[in-house]
Amino acid sequence: MMRLHHHPLCPFSRKIRLALREKGLSAELVEVEPWKREGEIVELNHAAEVPVLVDEDLVICDSRAIADHLEEAYPDTSLLGSSLEQRAETRRLCGWFDVKFCREVTDLLFGEKLLKRLRRVGTPNSEAMRAGSANIRGHLAYVSHLYQQRRWLAGDDLSLADLTAAAHFSVLDYLGDVPWKDFAPARDWYAKIKSRPSFRPLLMDRIVALRPAAHYDDLDF
Amino acid sequence: MMRLHHHPLCPFSRKIRLALREKGLSAELVEVEPWKREGEIVELNHAAEVPVLVDEDLVICDSRAIADHLEEAYPDTSLLGSSLEQRAETRRLCGWFDVKFCREVTDLLFGEKLLKRLRRVGTPNSEAMRAGSANIRGHLAYVSHLYQQRRWLAGDDLSLADLTAAAHFSVLDYLGDVPWKDFAPARDWYAKIKSRPSFRPLLMDRIVALRPAAHYDDLDF
Repeated sequence: MMRLHHHPLCPFSRKIRLALREKGLSAELVEVEPWKREGEIVELNHAAEVPVLVDEDLVICDSRAIADHLEEAYPDTSLLGSSLEQRAETRRLCGWFDVKFCREVTDLLFGEKLLKRLRRVGTPNSEAMRAGSANIRGHLAYVSHLYQQRRWLAGDDLSLADLTAAAHFSVLDYLGDVPWKDFAPARDWYAKIKSRPSFRPLLMDRIVALRPAAHYDDLDF
Repeated sequence: MMRLHHHPLCPFSRKIRLALREKGLSAELVEVEPWKREGEIVELNHAAEVPVLVDEDLVICDSRAIADHLEEAYPDTSLLGSSLEQRAETRRLCGWFDVKFCREVTDLLFGEKLLKRLRRVGTPNSEAMRAGSANIRGHLAYVSHLYQQRRWLAGDDLSLADLTAAAHFSVLDYLGDVPWKDFAPARDWYAKIKSRPSFRPLLMDRIVALRPAAHYDDLDF
């Protein structure tokens, strides 16, 4: 059986947890606090970052490398799509959320509010948090724009783009930082993915340092 | 013929320029200043970021999406390797440089010193630059460590990991910010990749705002 070393609120770990379930694969979950740089994670990954997937003899680090490995090793259910065009569109949006959204929103809100507290380093930077709160609105507008034209973000099928976006939004939603009410189509998309069985374990995650926002596990938020 | 919209000193664009040449492909280069958010780039990429590859009808945004597209559409020369294990190792190191190195070094040195000047926003943050200069040493030690065990960074064959790492190091080298002399194996690796024909166009790049460091295009630096 595969083993996934993860942190419950790490968006990159969440993407892989969703991908595993959507592909019908199961993995034993090993919870890690990577910033402590202790235990098995340091031996598995020189960067001491999660997620790390152990698949028999293979140790796979970096969430995109893991997602690509799952596509290649378990191709039955593809999360990228079949045509070159569809795969490029899925990957464009994965990059959008893992790089651009992460830099403009996740790092500024989740990073400042929660990661600093968990790591016990510094205090939240209010200027960064204000920027993150402003930036998330542009991204919600873009999700709304995409979802008004398509059944899922990258096209008519659920893809890794949806899982990547939902993974990032979900950790911000835990903090109550997503203004869903102003972006109805984006909220409809999130309600749809939040209702999937693959999402259920994420809604049950709780960390000691902080309780989730009241609507976090409500499917009719 | 393919067209690549790029900026000469963007590390992500450089990775694709190298990948195209190493795969024996050619593309017309279109130079873009993406931060101006004007012209064709905005129509091609909603994020208005480079690189963007146009391959016949297909517009591909995000450097990892482009690299993956090139692997799938032009598989004759693989830059990832053939086994699942080799591909995972290549991708781990691509993620290392595109995410970790970029965050800990490229953003702090290149971003502060040059991007701010090009974009005409703010002044360089000296604390960030000090952190970048300290961090690059750990990464050079890691490159040295890898290169002492392997012929190239991800194994015995040149791979996308080498191109990704070299793309990041090359823009810092343009600024004279890489302390090669303290890391002899890393320097040997860089000398080897710098001598390849695929690298030559990068060594001829010049931007108006800043001349490169004296040794930038010297193969015996």
